[in-house]
Amino acid sequence: MPNPTAAMLVIGDEILSGRTKDTNTNHLACALTQAGIDLKEARVVSDEHDHIVEAVRALSAQYAHVFTSGGIGPTHDDITADAIGAAFGAHVDIREDAHDLLAAHYARDGKEFNDARKRMARIPDGATLIDNPVSVAPGFILGNVHVMAGVPKVFHAMVETVLATMTGGQPLLSATLRVHIGEGDIAGPLGALAEANPDVSLGSYPFQGEDGSFGSNLVARGTDVTELKLVMDQLAKALGVEHG
Amino acid sequence: MPNPTAAMLVIGDEILSGRTKDTNTNHLACALTQAGIDLKEARVVSDEHDHIVEAVRALSAQYAHVFTSGGIGPTHDDITADAIGAAFGAHVDIREDAHDLLAAHYARDGKEFNDARKRMARIPDGATLIDNPVSVAPGFILGNVHVMAGVPKVFHAMVETVLATMTGGQPLLSATLRVHIGEGDIAGPLGALAEANPDVSLGSYPFQGEDGSFGSNLVARGTDVTELKLVMDQLAKALGVEHG
Repeated sequence: MPNPTAAMLVIGDEILSGRTKDTNTNHLACALTQAGIDLKEARVVSDEHDHIVEAVRALSAQYAHVFTSGGIGPTHDDITADAIGAAFGAHVDIREDAHDLLAAHYARDGKEFNDARKRMARIPDGATLIDNPVSVAPGFILGNVHVMAGVPKVFHAMVETVLATMTGGQPLLSATLRVHIGEGDIAGPLGALAEANPDVSLGSYPFQGEDGSFGSNLVARGTDVTELKLVMDQLAKALGVEHG
Repeated sequence: MPNPTAAMLVIGDEILSGRTKDTNTNHLACALTQAGIDLKEARVVSDEHDHIVEAVRALSAQYAHVFTSGGIGPTHDDITADAIGAAFGAHVDIREDAHDLLAAHYARDGKEFNDARKRMARIPDGATLIDNPVSVAPGFILGNVHVMAGVPKVFHAMVETVLATMTGGQPLLSATLRVHIGEGDIAGPLGALAEANPDVSLGSYPFQGEDGSFGSNLVARGTDVTELKLVMDQLAKALGVEHG
């Protein structure tokens, strides 16, 4: 059975202006690879209601799971909850359980639980909350969409929580062979091996060092470690290099 | 007049498996912000023909410019040129000018100009070549799609070349105010200022240090430096903080 599929949706102008580097996609990609869930697409969209709605609808129809990052804080540009609600036609309002979690948190901290902070309790009808062990304000799951915070620490914690509840397929394993040979001299044997081993995905990623050295990282991916090893041995032999 | 819009399309399984971190999107985002072109969306798709074709068609219809990264090397998994051709219904074959550039390069280096390397001269009919000062194999422009290499050094050089030929709008400027105040206490004044200044985009990006310190970076973006300064002064005053 093929692995379940997934997509990532990063929401935020700060990524598209270049001000902030998105690290959440790479974090999720690594976690999903380990879990046996295939990340098939990632998108970054701006803080615009219609744009978020459109992306959520497209991705949630196309993939088994969608993960979002960003836009669930207390400020005016945090519009993700409303956009997710709109995408699913779900009413969005302050929800009692989320409200109570946050009220208790701010009472403990001696901070005012004002209108802005109450916005973080706005959850679409029918959603399940995702625990936030870092800063309390919850994420939520609606349909197949997992709505999580943009702050990396909180995002990581939420990913761990939701992945624990998901059934993945077989973890995707990989083996890498680093060679100081140009891609143009590798392509022939690599293509032949790829064709002979349809269960193994073979990729070539060229590198160029500052010192003028160059070469390629050749990566085999698959779920069967014996098969990966065999393919890598054949590849090393075909290229006339040592393979540890 | 609003700035021209743009989208980025990163092509490659290695990004979606988490093996490689995409840095090209952030590089392009910063370059476009300076050039006065608004990056509105970024996507990462896998090395699958239909997936690339679909994304290219969607993005090129929706935005003024599309920039792609990856998949133009000599190996079997480099399928970008054919996918771009298919997206535009353009025939793709080895083109004489690209062929001659590469032939001369490999002759100088004393390397065989084999079939794999000849694949890098496959260019859709009607495309314009993009110079590659690093490793010769050219990118190309077809319609509003700028097809560039995934290797960051080469991508950077190609971005510089293509941006020099584009007419942007006004560079998007930004001013940042870093405050040790939680977002929940900022949201009120920030939202009010955002409403009163529709030409300025105001965003709040929370941070949390390892030492337990927390706060927000408040960012104003716009094209008028005087207006940005005025808004930041008002914001600092409303929050009761110093502003340099």
